[in-house]
Amino acid sequence: MADIVELSPEAKSDALITVEEGPGITRIVLANPPANALSIEVMETLKAAFERCAENTDCRVVILAAKGETWCAGHDLKELTAHRADEDRGRAFYEKTMRLCSDLMQTIVRLPQPVIAEVGGFATAAGCQLVASCDLAIASEEAQFQTPGVHIGLFCSTPMVALSRNVAPKHAMEMLLTGERIDARTAREFGLVNRVVPPEYLGTIIGKYATTIASKSPLTVRTGKEAFYRQMEMPLSEAYDYAARTMVDNMLARDAEEGIGAFLEKRKPEWTGQ
Amino acid sequence: MADIVELSPEAKSDALITVEEGPGITRIVLANPPANALSIEVMETLKAAFERCAENTDCRVVILAAKGETWCAGHDLKELTAHRADEDRGRAFYEKTMRLCSDLMQTIVRLPQPVIAEVGGFATAAGCQLVASCDLAIASEEAQFQTPGVHIGLFCSTPMVALSRNVAPKHAMEMLLTGERIDARTAREFGLVNRVVPPEYLGTIIGKYATTIASKSPLTVRTGKEAFYRQMEMPLSEAYDYAARTMVDNMLARDAEEGIGAFLEKRKPEWTGQ
Amino acid sequence: MADIVELSPEAKSDALITVEEGPGITRIVLANPPANALSIEVMETLKAAFERCAENTDCRVVILAAKGETWCAGHDLKELTAHRADEDRGRAFYEKTMRLCSDLMQTIVRLPQPVIAEVGGFATAAGCQLVASCDLAIASEEAQFQTPGVHIGLFCSTPMVALSRNVAPKHAMEMLLTGERIDARTAREFGLVNRVVPPEYLGTIIGKYATTIASKSPLTVRTGKEAFYRQMEMPLSEAYDYAARTMVDNMLARDAEEGIGAFLEKRKPEWTGQ
Repeated sequence: MADIVELSPEAKSDALITVEEGPGITRIVLANPPANALSIEVMETLKAAFERCAENTDCRVVILAAKGETWCAGHDLKELTAHRADEDRGRAFYEKTMRLCSDLMQTIVRLPQPVIAEVGGFATAAGCQLVASCDLAIASEEAQFQTPGVHIGLFCSTPMVALSRNVAPKHAMEMLLTGERIDARTAREFGLVNRVVPPEYLGTIIGKYATTIASKSPLTVRTGKEAFYRQMEMPLSEAYDYAARTMVDNMLARDAEEGIGAFLEKRKPEWTGQ
Repeated sequence: MADIVELSPEAKSDALITVEEGPGITRIVLANPPANALSIEVMETLKAAFERCAENTDCRVVILAAKGETWCAGHDLKELTAHRADEDRGRAFYEKTMRLCSDLMQTIVRLPQPVIAEVGGFATAAGCQLVASCDLAIASEEAQFQTPGVHIGLFCSTPMVALSRNVAPKHAMEMLLTGERIDARTAREFGLVNRVVPPEYLGTIIGKYATTIASKSPLTVRTGKEAFYRQMEMPLSEAYDYAARTMVDNMLARDAEEGIGAFLEKRKPEWTGQ
Repeated sequence: MADIVELSPEAKSDALITVEEGPGITRIVLANPPANALSIEVMETLKAAFERCAENTDCRVVILAAKGETWCAGHDLKELTAHRADEDRGRAFYEKTMRLCSDLMQTIVRLPQPVIAEVGGFATAAGCQLVASCDLAIASEEAQFQTPGVHIGLFCSTPMVALSRNVAPKHAMEMLLTGERIDARTAREFGLVNRVVPPEYLGTIIGKYATTIASKSPLTVRTGKEAFYRQMEMPLSEAYDYAARTMVDNMLARDAEEGIGAFLEKRKPEWTGQ
């Protein structure tokens, strides 16, 4: 892998999240400890931060991190409960919450840039769903994962959508039905995270992944990420027709011409992103 | 997890299976050793037992177990062979068998309660399919799993439906094409079982899982289990729309109000199942 | 498993690949080192070799192997680059290449016989896709796997179709986005290969798998393989309807009658393939 990137962050804080922009790499940090709960305001702020990344041509890869021991505790139960006093017993608010949450998760999946979850703590409910929704996830040995809705009478049905697309059905069912925590090594074994590292190396390893991906053609990476999720939902022959078309277009792009040329001439490619 | 439940079974035996009913937990035991074969009569008895669970509002979780070293050997080959003498060479009987078998497996998947396979022995062919069809599976170290149809000229095509939805394609293909047995640890590695325990602890561990799940709101568990299998067959955005609606309805149910309230007030919830 | 088969090959070489035919087993060897690149000519030759297997009723199982340290390096980049001088900048040629490649991969999936990848070296890009497209894969400890397109500006979009149907999404994404190699043990952990063996045992173990599968009813194996991939793309209830019909037809075939009869009479079955 490439050398470690030293982020020289121009940190922009808007109280709930922090956005650090290094060369090619944007690091979005949940900064509302101790719970880093996904209130409406946090979800809107987070979604807007991802949307800024989508429009930022300098951004090649996004890291999603969090401050504190709880990486993200999921929805804000106090906020949800307060709306039980609404005339409709909260229905409109819950609909807004769930729609926004689902939009946020799909914003990550549809983002042109890969998103790496940097998980140093406890990711629970919609927090666990955030990890599952990222393209890659690196966890520290101290990270834990949980879908505990069943303890409070509210099954983790939306987290389940992302979780069940990451891990085998019986593993997902165990987490969902028992609500028990799993540790980072189990999460790796299940396929929920890519790698588990000692806490003191988490930043370094994440930096290596991010720098490696940021060194690639952004056109190529964007094309590939989009194609990945689209072809996954197609039958095999349709997936091949689609992927073959994608590959032909990619071959005709300048970055593939440059990349293949550089490889054959044993030199470093210069990407234009076209 | 919660304490171990002591089943005080009011065992009802109808020769082929035994049904033990403890508080919140029903344990259905295949009781026709040595093969525990799935004859028409056994499958009908078993399906009826599951259907009684579905209508039993006291039943929160079902354990599927078996007596003897062979957990379940699959279909009754002698019964199948006897019908070759039928006028239609057995076609009508085989159609009845396969339809009933597929109905039985889908009865487990659609049961409102989670079903845990307690596998202490050898699960083969449609027996292996039973394990794959349960929501969770705990195996003793002595358990083994096999789809051996290829040895007798009859590919395990219906077991394959459940198996291939549990484990990776190359693992499923290895089991199906070679017909070789795998041990419990391999089954765990493949994702076919959740946990492997020494035989003497199997009952205890199963009891812990069952008690944990039985302590949750039955409405929440039922909602979640149904949503799990339905959303798995949808594309991502449709799955999110569906899961978000499920979650809103769940939020407005009394058990979620009670569960979230109890959590915020740091007390134990009292479920009404509504 | 059955004893090791000693292939007594009647090797037919046509420069690019070698085809060895033993009793029931065909071994196709990529024989164009050092890269074993998939030029148009190689892909056409390889596809034709598989199609001959499909028509060869003596062939029960196919092994796909390769000479040299690089098992298969994927497409021929020099060939692709030469066509940039075409009037259409290569579009027609790239379309032909990608269509042929996708056809080749689906020829393996649709082949009546199981295909086992015998991977003794480095399988990269469309070479990795070949491994993923086989029904089973056995690798030596020295094998490595990689989807490195991202290094040269050309995302491995068609390899991704096969890869993402073999391994968990986050594992596939890590390989695709970083372009890094994984070793054989990691490939086994991911589900991309079935077994990893010391290089000196690779031929022996492959032979055991091949002999085991070749000893089964070819009708049964063909029926099962086809049903496997078809039912995987169906919702559960449709998959069960289809698999139940397949099983009834299989029951009424002579080989199932013979196989079940032999089993009940404790004798060796004699397959007729009908």
